[in-house]
Amino acid sequence: MKKHNYSAGPCILPQEVFEKSAQAVLDFNNSGLSILEISHRSKDFVAVMEEARALVLELLGLEGKGYQALFLHGGASLEFLMVPYNLMRENGKAAYLDTGTWANSAIKEAKHFGETLLVGSSKEENYSYIPKDYLIPSDVDYFHCTSNNTIFGTQMKTFPQTNVPLVCDMSSDIFSRKLDFSQFDLIYAGAQKNMGPAGVTLVVVKEEILGKTGRTIPNMLNYQQHIAKESMYNTPPVFPTYVSLLTLQWLKNKGGIAAIEKVNETKAKLLYTEIDRNPLFKGAAAKEDRSFMNATFLLENPAHQETFDALWKAAGISGLNGHRSVGGYRASMYNALPLESVQVLVDVMQDLESKV
Amino acid sequence: MKKHNYSAGPCILPQEVFEKSAQAVLDFNNSGLSILEISHRSKDFVAVMEEARALVLELLGLEGKGYQALFLHGGASLEFLMVPYNLMRENGKAAYLDTGTWANSAIKEAKHFGETLLVGSSKEENYSYIPKDYLIPSDVDYFHCTSNNTIFGTQMKTFPQTNVPLVCDMSSDIFSRKLDFSQFDLIYAGAQKNMGPAGVTLVVVKEEILGKTGRTIPNMLNYQQHIAKESMYNTPPVFPTYVSLLTLQWLKNKGGIAAIEKVNETKAKLLYTEIDRNPLFKGAAAKEDRSFMNATFLLENPAHQETFDALWKAAGISGLNGHRSVGGYRASMYNALPLESVQVLVDVMQDLESKV
Repeated sequence: MKKHNYSAGPCILPQEVFEKSAQAVLDFNNSGLSILEISHRSKDFVAVMEEARALVLELLGLEGKGYQALFLHGGASLEFLMVPYNLMRENGKAAYLDTGTWANSAIKEAKHFGETLLVGSSKEENYSYIPKDYLIPSDVDYFHCTSNNTIFGTQMKTFPQTNVPLVCDMSSDIFSRKLDFSQFDLIYAGAQKNMGPAGVTLVVVKEEILGKTGRTIPNMLNYQQHIAKESMYNTPPVFPTYVSLLTLQWLKNKGGIAAIEKVNETKAKLLYTEIDRNPLFKGAAAKEDRSFMNATFLLENPAHQETFDALWKAAGISGLNGHRSVGGYRASMYNALPLESVQVLVDVMQDLESKV
Repeated sequence: MKKHNYSAGPCILPQEVFEKSAQAVLDFNNSGLSILEISHRSKDFVAVMEEARALVLELLGLEGKGYQALFLHGGASLEFLMVPYNLMRENGKAAYLDTGTWANSAIKEAKHFGETLLVGSSKEENYSYIPKDYLIPSDVDYFHCTSNNTIFGTQMKTFPQTNVPLVCDMSSDIFSRKLDFSQFDLIYAGAQKNMGPAGVTLVVVKEEILGKTGRTIPNMLNYQQHIAKESMYNTPPVFPTYVSLLTLQWLKNKGGIAAIEKVNETKAKLLYTEIDRNPLFKGAAAKEDRSFMNATFLLENPAHQETFDALWKAAGISGLNGHRSVGGYRASMYNALPLESVQVLVDVMQDLESKV
């Protein structure tokens, strides 16, 4: 039985992507070679990288606006330090919004490079909401935020107006909703939610913000080097990049971000409506900040846990357990999760209601 | 027609690894899920990571000797800076042996962290040999060398005795030959030659050399953090790590490094004997330093190039063109390249001789 995969990441990707990826492992482009054994400098892979970089800018509506898309190693965790390395002046400072675990990790890494200013935090309420009334000083080198908080199930619905570079970790909701992406100066995202498998990281950066810190930066951590080498400064993660391209092509064929946003809204509405209607459950995050990607919810009565767990497992659902920081359940509804899977979960929740 | 893949890297892996990897992309361990969509914290993947780390130490003969194996992001190029970040004291210095392009890149990144001492270089002879009579000062923080130079076709046959930590970039010949691996304090290797696909990097480090610099190190670049988190500090490159495990299992089933070394010696001897015998060809590297992984050779008469190129392409050989720094040809004979492929190349060289 094919699973209803609610994993928070790495997570479900489109079935056709799995099939095409598996084929490329056996024989890539009818070359007689596996994609795992070809040179990254081969014509076929250079074409993959070029198309992937261009498709990112096309899908985000950033073509011709001074942005570069890079497919890098390291995960978002490496970006936590590459961002300050590339954007924070010597003895400079940057403003951070603390909305959860990953925002915190970004702040910790930035402290190695200069002063970090916490402009807002919802830590005292276990990150159950997004701070809103905060001020960004005009003399910081950049402002950093996390658009979606996978663990806590919150999502920024709007982004601040500011005169400093706006940097956003979009690991868990990039390509899921329409935004004016040109309001951001640097976006980064580990691939393993809406874009591809673990092992490759997307960076989209407005070139004009780079090279202004006075720092010397090791080549491997220098965005300008990666841009100059067309995202091939060193051997890139070939297969994860290829799978990302397939996923981006799938998204484009679906109608792009505008089309997937509608599906994501339908899925989120279906589940949150049930969480609010069903007397056995309650949502964990503030309603106005609920994530359309990760719905966190709890049983009103923990005694129902065993029955509920047995029901959803029997229905073929996997990956529904909540993160230990929140407890309860987390339903991650990334782009590739079908509406049908959400309906199965809602049916199980109603089944529990009828049984207890 | 299946190709005879001489690519310098990413390169040929065992056929059974391609088949098992493709299957895992469709359905991993009969879980109903693709390996591309499972959590890295799932029981099945944690088992992959644990087995891969243990198998590395077993194959290298380093079990119980104070070493840790890590599967990290970033390629060897990230190690070029992680090594000095973790091992060079503030205002410290390190000794480097300059044997080619990659050694040079390592030196450049280290300069961001302190003083680099060049103890030997074959740059003036276009890196056609390995410098041998060099001294390593006893007051440096470590000595760094590159065991095999993919581009120039040279290989270190012995390693210096020294009282400082011995660090080696073994990207292109790890797992290919027996060595006393316990003479090294830190070994690193991009996976994409003998170990797996592009996108994962192996680090084998003796724990006692860490934590001695006085530096604060960003978590993502700190070997001690990666050790503490059992190589899962952040989401690891799941699929490249799994393919690496399959390749290491293949090697173990073949009889380990001792067995593959014999095959590699046979392949290298077959090709180098022909290069030396055939009056149309000459080797590019000093004989005593010839790499058993990458044989670089040239036509005595460049006018034969067109005929030779047509012959080897017709024979199903791919990836034989030399790097622009050396010209001519480069036959990369990594672990997974069958002896049969080398025989095909030798036959083509003899065919050329009979035709011109």
